[in-house]
Amino acid sequence: MTSNFRHVALIGKYQASSAGSIGESSRQALEDIAHFLERQGCEVMLEAETASNTGLTHYPVLNVDEIGSRCDLGLVVGGDGTMLGIGRRLARFGTPLIGINQGRLGFITDIPFDTYQATLPPMLQGEYEEDLRPLMHATVVRDERVVFEALAMNDVVVNRGATSGMVELRVEVGGRFVANQRADGLIIASPTGSTAYSLSAGGPMLHPSIPGWVLVPIAPHTLSNRPIVLSDATEVAVEVVSGRDVSANFDMQSLASLLHGDRILVKRSEHCVRFLHPQGWNYFATLRKKLRWNEGGS
Amino acid sequence: MTSNFRHVALIGKYQASSAGSIGESSRQALEDIAHFLERQGCEVMLEAETASNTGLTHYPVLNVDEIGSRCDLGLVVGGDGTMLGIGRRLARFGTPLIGINQGRLGFITDIPFDTYQATLPPMLQGEYEEDLRPLMHATVVRDERVVFEALAMNDVVVNRGATSGMVELRVEVGGRFVANQRADGLIIASPTGSTAYSLSAGGPMLHPSIPGWVLVPIAPHTLSNRPIVLSDATEVAVEVVSGRDVSANFDMQSLASLLHGDRILVKRSEHCVRFLHPQGWNYFATLRKKLRWNEGGS
Amino acid sequence: MTSNFRHVALIGKYQASSAGSIGESSRQALEDIAHFLERQGCEVMLEAETASNTGLTHYPVLNVDEIGSRCDLGLVVGGDGTMLGIGRRLARFGTPLIGINQGRLGFITDIPFDTYQATLPPMLQGEYEEDLRPLMHATVVRDERVVFEALAMNDVVVNRGATSGMVELRVEVGGRFVANQRADGLIIASPTGSTAYSLSAGGPMLHPSIPGWVLVPIAPHTLSNRPIVLSDATEVAVEVVSGRDVSANFDMQSLASLLHGDRILVKRSEHCVRFLHPQGWNYFATLRKKLRWNEGGS
Amino acid sequence: MTSNFRHVALIGKYQASSAGSIGESSRQALEDIAHFLERQGCEVMLEAETASNTGLTHYPVLNVDEIGSRCDLGLVVGGDGTMLGIGRRLARFGTPLIGINQGRLGFITDIPFDTYQATLPPMLQGEYEEDLRPLMHATVVRDERVVFEALAMNDVVVNRGATSGMVELRVEVGGRFVANQRADGLIIASPTGSTAYSLSAGGPMLHPSIPGWVLVPIAPHTLSNRPIVLSDATEVAVEVVSGRDVSANFDMQSLASLLHGDRILVKRSEHCVRFLHPQGWNYFATLRKKLRWNEGGS
Repeated sequence: MTSNFRHVALIGKYQASSAGSIGESSRQALEDIAHFLERQGCEVMLEAETASNTGLTHYPVLNVDEIGSRCDLGLVVGGDGTMLGIGRRLARFGTPLIGINQGRLGFITDIPFDTYQATLPPMLQGEYEEDLRPLMHATVVRDERVVFEALAMNDVVVNRGATSGMVELRVEVGGRFVANQRADGLIIASPTGSTAYSLSAGGPMLHPSIPGWVLVPIAPHTLSNRPIVLSDATEVAVEVVSGRDVSANFDMQSLASLLHGDRILVKRSEHCVRFLHPQGWNYFATLRKKLRWNEGGS
Repeated sequence: MTSNFRHVALIGKYQASSAGSIGESSRQALEDIAHFLERQGCEVMLEAETASNTGLTHYPVLNVDEIGSRCDLGLVVGGDGTMLGIGRRLARFGTPLIGINQGRLGFITDIPFDTYQATLPPMLQGEYEEDLRPLMHATVVRDERVVFEALAMNDVVVNRGATSGMVELRVEVGGRFVANQRADGLIIASPTGSTAYSLSAGGPMLHPSIPGWVLVPIAPHTLSNRPIVLSDATEVAVEVVSGRDVSANFDMQSLASLLHGDRILVKRSEHCVRFLHPQGWNYFATLRKKLRWNEGGS
Repeated sequence: MTSNFRHVALIGKYQASSAGSIGESSRQALEDIAHFLERQGCEVMLEAETASNTGLTHYPVLNVDEIGSRCDLGLVVGGDGTMLGIGRRLARFGTPLIGINQGRLGFITDIPFDTYQATLPPMLQGEYEEDLRPLMHATVVRDERVVFEALAMNDVVVNRGATSGMVELRVEVGGRFVANQRADGLIIASPTGSTAYSLSAGGPMLHPSIPGWVLVPIAPHTLSNRPIVLSDATEVAVEVVSGRDVSANFDMQSLASLLHGDRILVKRSEHCVRFLHPQGWNYFATLRKKLRWNEGGS
Repeated sequence: MTSNFRHVALIGKYQASSAGSIGESSRQALEDIAHFLERQGCEVMLEAETASNTGLTHYPVLNVDEIGSRCDLGLVVGGDGTMLGIGRRLARFGTPLIGINQGRLGFITDIPFDTYQATLPPMLQGEYEEDLRPLMHATVVRDERVVFEALAMNDVVVNRGATSGMVELRVEVGGRFVANQRADGLIIASPTGSTAYSLSAGGPMLHPSIPGWVLVPIAPHTLSNRPIVLSDATEVAVEVVSGRDVSANFDMQSLASLLHGDRILVKRSEHCVRFLHPQGWNYFATLRKKLRWNEGGS
C-alpha cells in the first residue's frame, strides 16, 4: 500500500506540559501514529521541537524549514493553536497539513485521536477535501520603518494597556479614511479567526470562502461602531492616535509600547495555509458542535 | 454641451403623500431637474407613475420596461426606498441610476437636492464612480412548485406572526445543513441591506465589494446562533419547520401564511443594479454620516 | 408522618399532547405522585383540567379558584409554561407552588421527576426556600377605557405585524417621557422573564431580588436604544405612535390590531407568585445548567 | 438675598491641561462663579488643588476633608470625571454637589456654563432635586490581607494584560458560586457607571433608583455569559483563577500584577454621593441627549 504523501512530518504540541516535558501519553500517541504511517508506506520524520520534547529518536529530525522543503505532508497532533503556529510557518512552502486532536474538538484539528486509524488511510490515498485559508501579513510601521512584522492566521489586534483608558485608533482602508475609533481595541480577523476572539467581541462568523476580513471594535465608545466586513484585496491601516501602553498582537505575537503615530498595516499574504480534511468534512458540522447549536438547551 | 447619457428617465418618489397626490414642492423639484437636464443636452422622459402623480405632461411618458429598453440613465428623486424599488426593476436592462435625495441623506441616494446643479454636469460627461450592487433572486417553493418569486436588493426575511411564538427554520447552504434555528425570524441580507434591518438585528456591515450574504437570526433562542457571512455563489435554503403565521418578505414584498415544509430559496441574480456616484464618492463617508461616527457624542 | 401542607392540589401540564389527550406516562406519573403525597399525610385534590385530561377520578376535583381558597400547596407537574400559567392565576390567593419537571430542566420547575421521592418529604415538612416572584399587571387603554387586561409573569411585548415595517412606540416612565423608539417591538420583562424572550433579544438577566423591569427594544432602528432597567415601583406606559398590525402580548395572552394612540400600561401587581424550592436551591446553579456555562465548549 | 448653603466650596477640573496649568478661560470662569456666589450671599472657599492650579488667592483654601467638615455645598466646574473624583472623597461627609460643565454635557454635570446665572439662584434657595448615588466599596484581598482598597462610583473592572490571553475569573455572589468566566475581563458597574464603560461592553443601563450592580463580561469566551443585574445588598467576590498581568481598576484607581488567588470584593458603601439638580431635572432627558435618541439618524 502506498501513500500519495511519501514524506510525512510528525508535529506534536508546541507547548510542553507544565511539568516541563511532554506527557507520556502524548509521546506514546506520537509513536503509535508514526508506526501507523510507516505501515501506510510513508517515510516518517519528526519536527525538531517535537523530537526533543518527546525524546523519540528513531526518526530523522527536521526543523520547520526543512519540513517545508522536504516533506509532502505535515501531520499535526495537538489543538488549533499548534496547527495555526505551524501552519503560518509552512505556508510559504505550500505543505498541506492534517490535524489530529487529542483533547477536545478544534475548529481546524478535526480528527479525534481515537479514529485516526480509520480516517487517515483514505486521506493518504488522496481522498480528502482541501481547505485553503488566507494568511494576514501584518507590520508595524514607525517613522516610515517597519519595526515589527509577522504572519497571522486568526487576527491582528491592537489594544490598550491593562490599567489605562481607551485607545483612539484611526482606521483607513485602501488609503481611504474609515473612522476614528475610541475603544478598548480593534480586532481585524480572518475567516479562520472569526470563530475565535472576534466572536467573543461581537463579530460575525465568516465562511472560509469569504475573501475578506472583519473589523471588530472591542467595547467601542460610540455604540454605532459596529463590526464591518471588508475585502481582503485592500490594505487596512490602523494608526495609534492616543492611548497609553498600546500593543499590537498578531496571533498573539506581540509588540508592546506602541507610540502615537505608529501604523499597523494588514494585507493578504501571497501564501495560504493548506489544511486537508476527511472527505465529507463539513464546516457547518464543526460550527454546530463547537457552538452547541441544536442541543435543545435554553 | 452634450451628455454621455442622451435619453434620461426622471423617476419620482413612488409613494404619493398621504393626501393622495405628490406634493407641490416635489412637482416643482422634478420640473426644475427636467429643465436642467434639457439644458445639459439630454432628452427627458418621465416614468409613468411619476407623470400621473405630478401631472407633468410636457415629456414623453414611459413605463419601467420602456425606460429599460430606451433610456441611457435613470435619475431618481426620492429616498433609498424609491431607488431600491426602481433599481430592482431596471436591473435586467443594466440601466444606470443616479439618486437625488430630497429629505435626509440616504445610503444610496447621496446627492442632496440643493447641490445637483453642480454635481450632475460632470457625471453626465462621464465622470462618475460606478457602484454595482448584487441582487438576490428569491423564491418560495411549496410541494416542488414556485409559489412566490421576487428580486430583493436589501434582504430576504422569514419571520413569525405577531402574536405567535418562535418560528423554527432549517437552514441549508449549497445543499449542506447549517442549523435548525428557533427565533423570531431570519434575515438574509446583501451588502446593500447590511446597513438596514440587518444592522438593527445585530448583523455586521458588509462592504459592497464583499461577494456574500449575511444570515442574521432575529432574537434567537440559542445565544450562540450568531450572524454568519456566506458566499453569494451558493444557494441558501430556509425551510419552515414549525411556527404559526410565518411569512416571507423580499424587500418587503411579502407572502404571508407560509406552510410547514415551504422552502425559501435565495441565490444571486445574474443581474446587478448599477448606481452612479459623483467622483470622489466614498462609501465610508456615507457610513460616518449616517451612523454619526466621530461626532464626539457619548 | 404529617405534612405542613395538608391540602395539596395536583396540577398537570396544561396543553394536552398533539394527540388530544395527555400521554399515558403523564397519567401514570400523576397517579404515582398522588399516592406518594397521600403516604406523606396529604389530602390530594386534582385541578379540573388535569382531571379531565388524565381521566383520573379518585380525587376531589377543583377549579383554579377553588384550589386557591381551599389548598395549602399546588404541586405542578410540567414545564415552566405550565408553572407560569397556574402561578398567575393563584397569585391572588398566595398559594405556594412546587414544580416537578418531566422533560428537561426548567428555570422554575427544578425538581426532576425521578428524584421527587427524595426531594419532596423534607419540603412538605417545612424545609424549603421560598422564592417570591413579582407579577406585572398590564392593560391596554383605548380612548381612556381599558380594552384588555391581564397579569404577566414573564413579559409584556408590543410588536409589529409579520409583514409590516417598524412600529414606533412612545415610552413613558412614571409620567416622564423616555424615548420614541422605532423597532420590531419592545419587551418589558420581569426578573423571571429576563431569562426568556428578553435574553434572546439582547437583554440582561435580572436576579429575582431586583425590584425592576428591563425594557428591551427588538431590532431597534437607533443603535443606541439599548436595554434599560427601571424600578418596578413606577408605571411604564407604551403608546402606539405608528405601525400596522401592532399587537400586545402579556405572557402570550394577545390583543391584536392595536390602534394608533392605544396605550399599554404596566405596573407591579400587588400579588406575587410563591415558588418553593428544595433547601440549598441556587438560582445561579440553574443559570449554569440552562445556559451551559463552564462546560468547556467554545 | 441669602442662600440655604452658606459655605460653598468651589472645585475646578482636577487634571490641569497638558501645558501643566489650568487654562486662562477656566481661571476666569471660576472667578466669575465665585463672584456670582458671593452676590448670592455665600461664603466662597477654594479647594486646594483648584487654588494652586488657577492661582486664585482671594478665597480661603481648604483641602477635601476640610471642605467636607466645613462646607454646606460643593460646586464643581468640570466634567463627569472631576465630579466622580470629588464625589467619592466627599461622600462620607454627606456634602451635596452641584456640577457645572464647561465642555460638552455630562451625565452628571448637567448645568451648562452659560446658563448657571439663571439656574443656580433657585437651587441655592432650596429648589432642587436630590439625586443620591450609591458608592461601591472595593478591596483586593491577598492571603487574607487587604492589599488595596478604594471607593468607586462607576465601576470595578478586573482585566487581562494587554499582550496576554484571556483571564479566568471565579465569580461568587453572597458566598454562592456563580460561574467561572474566561474573558478579557469583568466589569461590575453601578447605575452611575452603567452608562459609561459598561455600556460599551454590552451592558444595560440601570436607572439610578435600581439598588443593584450589573456584571458585564468583556469579550467572554462563552457566548451565553451575558450581563446580569444583581442586588447591591450582597457582596460580589471575583477571584483570579488564571491569566497574566491581571489588574483591578476601581474607577481607574488601579492595582496591577494581581496574583492567582487574589480576590476582589465589592460591596455597597454605607455612604452615598449627593448630587443636586435643577428642578425639573430628568434622567431620561440626559440619556436622550447623550445617546442621541430621537434624532432621526439612521
